[in-house]
Amino acid sequence: MSVEPFIWQSRVRFGDTDMSGRIFYVSLLNHFDAAETEFLRSRGVIYREIGPRTIAFPRVHVECDYLGPLGFDDLMHIGVTVERVGRTSFTLAFEVSVEGRSAARGKVVVVCMDGATQRAIPLPEKLRAALCS
Amino acid sequence: MSVEPFIWQSRVRFGDTDMSGRIFYVSLLNHFDAAETEFLRSRGVIYREIGPRTIAFPRVHVECDYLGPLGFDDLMHIGVTVERVGRTSFTLAFEVSVEGRSAARGKVVVVCMDGATQRAIPLPEKLRAALCS
Amino acid sequence: MSVEPFIWQSRVRFGDTDMSGRIFYVSLLNHFDAAETEFLRSRGVIYREIGPRTIAFPRVHVECDYLGPLGFDDLMHIGVTVERVGRTSFTLAFEVSVEGRSAARGKVVVVCMDGATQRAIPLPEKLRAALCS
Amino acid sequence: MSVEPFIWQSRVRFGDTDMSGRIFYVSLLNHFDAAETEFLRSRGVIYREIGPRTIAFPRVHVECDYLGPLGFDDLMHIGVTVERVGRTSFTLAFEVSVEGRSAARGKVVVVCMDGATQRAIPLPEKLRAALCS
Repeated sequence: MSVEPFIWQSRVRFGDTDMSGRIFYVSLLNHFDAAETEFLRSRGVIYREIGPRTIAFPRVHVECDYLGPLGFDDLMHIGVTVERVGRTSFTLAFEVSVEGRSAARGKVVVVCMDGATQRAIPLPEKLRAALCS
Repeated sequence: MSVEPFIWQSRVRFGDTDMSGRIFYVSLLNHFDAAETEFLRSRGVIYREIGPRTIAFPRVHVECDYLGPLGFDDLMHIGVTVERVGRTSFTLAFEVSVEGRSAARGKVVVVCMDGATQRAIPLPEKLRAALCS
Repeated sequence: MSVEPFIWQSRVRFGDTDMSGRIFYVSLLNHFDAAETEFLRSRGVIYREIGPRTIAFPRVHVECDYLGPLGFDDLMHIGVTVERVGRTSFTLAFEVSVEGRSAARGKVVVVCMDGATQRAIPLPEKLRAALCS
Repeated sequence: MSVEPFIWQSRVRFGDTDMSGRIFYVSLLNHFDAAETEFLRSRGVIYREIGPRTIAFPRVHVECDYLGPLGFDDLMHIGVTVERVGRTSFTLAFEVSVEGRSAARGKVVVVCMDGATQRAIPLPEKLRAALCS
């Protein structure tokens, strides 16, 4: 049982900002993409090893609440937790903070799909075990 | 009163795809960004004219459900509607379809903020009128 | 023989800008990606029809000179011309202007590659003909 | 005098790939953006401290040669060196390798500009000293 939350540190890059001087809201989600991969790696799951040749992992839902400003060069702490593990999908939750200040909160729902039939299939056992650990 | 929904047509670009062969889920939101600007233009509102020197329009919430595959070069029809107009914020809804097939559905909540004080302020009257038209 | 240069019109999107208030230099290249696809379409070539299942078209070189400011909502005219057609590769040149003012100039070199062997192969005849037309 | 080259490690993210299964050529340049910031930080220069309120640093040229495949999750070593320091501009060179294999080589030319007059101005002394160290 993992008690410690996984934290991925990532900086707001110049290219992530927009003319408002803050992070462009879409750019934050690219950091979630990195955090997701690193979170799974921390649990021993390497995406490209369990997929995506025959199995695909489309995201079927994403959402994000922006709670405070995120500016260029801010060092984000992105906490990743497993919110739900279903039969064919799972939900990851993201908590973004900068210097202890909460800045954003999001989630993504990932489905396990057979690449050939385009149908949802049960999560590979190794992935399920990693998510539930 | 506008009866016709606004439709913005946009193609899935090569750079929007990922190694799954489909659109990268984050990339779709960049098309929402374009659709939002064009929707407001169709209502006579040019973002850079009402802002963002003194007024900023941070997005405080985004969400999207991915309902079907979106592949390279697909011509998306992105319908934009006003879901809610509040005192200091508004919500736009997006419906994405390809050849009549529903492919995604999303929304974004935009707040009107005083750039100096970083506080929410009432929507400019011209913007409110455009959103309610 | 095509005399008229191909022009692709594309707007600088909010997400394309950075905190300088101008387009982020990398973002302009995404517009080149769109312009490339549309240029080829105008010549009757649809990338996804000649590839990329067995043939891939990796870009092996890109360059861009930024000649003047490009700001949010600017309507870019992106002229695309064929600069060179080799046996296994070709070069496209891009000229970006806004309201008649030159704003950027770039090029990309595209190689035709066998996806299985990862080796350069002769351009498909249809593509070559389109590029030389 | 710095003898050791600066190396920034960065992974190819899922969102960086395209349907070819490799990195989308434009996406690599976003990693250069991060490498540039980190290189300067290693020399004691924080971009947001010397700018960009009054001084802007537009990139006036970028180029990149793609020498070998870069795939999802590849851990890139991005070497950054100062190629040239002029009166009002400087050139950074990037060398990308994966597991000792050369994968790409690029450069970017950065100009120091007065944000108000939009004219090139001499590099701030602190920046010049850092680049020449």
